[in-house]
Amino acid sequence: MSTEFSFRLMGKDGAARRGEISMPRGTIQTPAFMPVGTGGTVKAMYLDQVRELGSDIILGNTYHLMLRPGAERVARLGGLHEFARWPYPILTDSGGFQVMSLSQLRKVTEQGVTFRSHIDGAAYEMSPERSIEIQGLLDSDIQMQLDECVALPAKPKEIERAMELSLRWAERCKVAFGDQPGKAMFGIVQGGDSPPLRLKSAQALSALDLKGYAVGGLAVGEPQNVMLDMLEVTCPALPENKPRYLMGVGTPDDILKSVARGIDMFDCVMPTRAGRHGLAFTRRGKVNLRNARHADDPRPLDEESNCPATRDYSRAYLHHLVKSGEALGAMLLTWNNLAYYQSLMRDIREAIEGGRFESRAGEITEDWARGDLPAL
Amino acid sequence: MSTEFSFRLMGKDGAARRGEISMPRGTIQTPAFMPVGTGGTVKAMYLDQVRELGSDIILGNTYHLMLRPGAERVARLGGLHEFARWPYPILTDSGGFQVMSLSQLRKVTEQGVTFRSHIDGAAYEMSPERSIEIQGLLDSDIQMQLDECVALPAKPKEIERAMELSLRWAERCKVAFGDQPGKAMFGIVQGGDSPPLRLKSAQALSALDLKGYAVGGLAVGEPQNVMLDMLEVTCPALPENKPRYLMGVGTPDDILKSVARGIDMFDCVMPTRAGRHGLAFTRRGKVNLRNARHADDPRPLDEESNCPATRDYSRAYLHHLVKSGEALGAMLLTWNNLAYYQSLMRDIREAIEGGRFESRAGEITEDWARGDLPAL
Ligand SMILES: [Zn+2]
Ligand SMILES: [Zn+2]
Repeated sequence: MSTEFSFRLMGKDGAARRGEISMPRGTIQTPAFMPVGTGGTVKAMYLDQVRELGSDIILGNTYHLMLRPGAERVARLGGLHEFARWPYPILTDSGGFQVMSLSQLRKVTEQGVTFRSHIDGAAYEMSPERSIEIQGLLDSDIQMQLDECVALPAKPKEIERAMELSLRWAERCKVAFGDQPGKAMFGIVQGGDSPPLRLKSAQALSALDLKGYAVGGLAVGEPQNVMLDMLEVTCPALPENKPRYLMGVGTPDDILKSVARGIDMFDCVMPTRAGRHGLAFTRRGKVNLRNARHADDPRPLDEESNCPATRDYSRAYLHHLVKSGEALGAMLLTWNNLAYYQSLMRDIREAIEGGRFESRAGEITEDWARGDLPAL
Repeated sequence: MSTEFSFRLMGKDGAARRGEISMPRGTIQTPAFMPVGTGGTVKAMYLDQVRELGSDIILGNTYHLMLRPGAERVARLGGLHEFARWPYPILTDSGGFQVMSLSQLRKVTEQGVTFRSHIDGAAYEMSPERSIEIQGLLDSDIQMQLDECVALPAKPKEIERAMELSLRWAERCKVAFGDQPGKAMFGIVQGGDSPPLRLKSAQALSALDLKGYAVGGLAVGEPQNVMLDMLEVTCPALPENKPRYLMGVGTPDDILKSVARGIDMFDCVMPTRAGRHGLAFTRRGKVNLRNARHADDPRPLDEESNCPATRDYSRAYLHHLVKSGEALGAMLLTWNNLAYYQSLMRDIREAIEGGRFESRAGEITEDWARGDLPAL
């Protein structure tokens, strides 16, 4: 095991990158998908299962964990890895995104954000320094700078103001984080849907020589092509030898197209949330198990999968569980969805290694377009 | 594997019995606890886990399954074992108890029950013959006669009327069931809290020479001592060479005391339902994980258990999951509870084998009374 945090770019295929992040708690093969473990649990899954599916790292949400059970409490209990029983790498967001989307009475100043908890209304202050302190209490391996993320569409002036503020907060986070050999603090590129602002943000952050870079403020309401345009501006402006993380993205198609533009890391609630709502991601596209067409269908979601949830349970049974609101429905579909996402990432990594990423991406996309099995 | 349904009484210790039920789908070591798989799923558990805990048989609810997904549909899909992926024995209730407790506009006549579904208001008829037909469509291994169960307290005349009706329905169910070598149909002793009515019911059912006998209409609101008194009247009136099943019971203490009176089989929603409400059954009694005393407690529920849910997760983490309403809280506590129930049954079986049931029951009860670990 590495005692340092390091990134090795192992190969490229067009702009797509095959890499490896090493740190004391483990190695992350990239392109990587990080399942979201909001409040110290990847919903409806045992973390043993999450690991077995090939997850090298999971994400924890600073906002949720600071409110409940509380960062100081997690620290007293040995940190988030010990608390949730996940001894492998953990990335935490800064809390900023959820403060903006979930909390009440929030107020952003140069100093930071004040807000009230959506759970009990308690008042909190979050500065760049406090965000890094909390992530340290959680013992997070990859910590994110506090940033301000603007929902799109937004006015250019507003986007610029938030981007500039985020840059100043990046510098403060870098100082607060200091020198932690086995860990990393990533900066976050902002700039909304404005190419010049994205470029400016990426260049300014690159000059800070951080250990990794995220692209934030995307997948916040804009069309996919806008997101991809922003990646085409941003990625070339980031250093080659540092990992690039596209925050909160996305669908399998978003992932394919973002890897093609040079992204290394992803996180998204989509596979877990969709699993709780009766939706299955498969190599034949998205399947809605609520649909009555499945009620009498003895076939599994995909007989060729090696995930038990995908291969062993009939669509009729899954339909029944979903319609009945049974916990096992969420458990099996979340399992299927994370298995699919991680198999997609493996597929992507192998294709890049083999120098055939573009053609493989085309095949995968065609399979989705061909759609699900015909009804019986 | 046996091709016949059979019961072997292997030994007795006082009135407590150690036995074995054999049938084509497997062998059931008794005294046995049957986890409740209401709608074709033991809530918040994978059935693989339920099996690994030592469950030889699970229970399916006819009422729930006939409404959703429907008995004919389950039959077309290969039966309940295939549908739910549980190839081992399944016992189904008759549907009568839940018709009485859950359905709307029900009306009991000599012929059977008419009622409306609590899900969508659809009208159904359930006769003794239809109940057996439905249980056959589910491919249930142990089927229960349709009976009428009266909530206690009730008027003696009402208890007698329902008991006599249940007897006539037992005869009709016996005819409807016919001769099915690898399967069994059990009669149900009724009679409320009246010793003479219980005795009359048990004697009349015994005369029908059924393959097993249940005691119904208990744990429906009466004090524990009334239930135990009824068992003391009923069990001696049932044939020694047939299994005896106490329906819907109960707490670990109910189970110990009912085994002491000659009961072989139990089912109850308690371990699964309690698990979804933050309650853990342990050898130190019941532990409420919602309690704030656990918030900072790094100790597991029981460090000596071999169940991962019990041994590996801190009380602080379980408390956090329960307070946050996370699915994993229900998953872990249900797992713990079923593990505890099945370890209790193993303990009971070994004690009967060793001729020390009474002293072992005393030790177990003392451990419960001593209570949970002191707070840190
Ligand atoms: Zn997302
Ligand atoms: Zn019960």
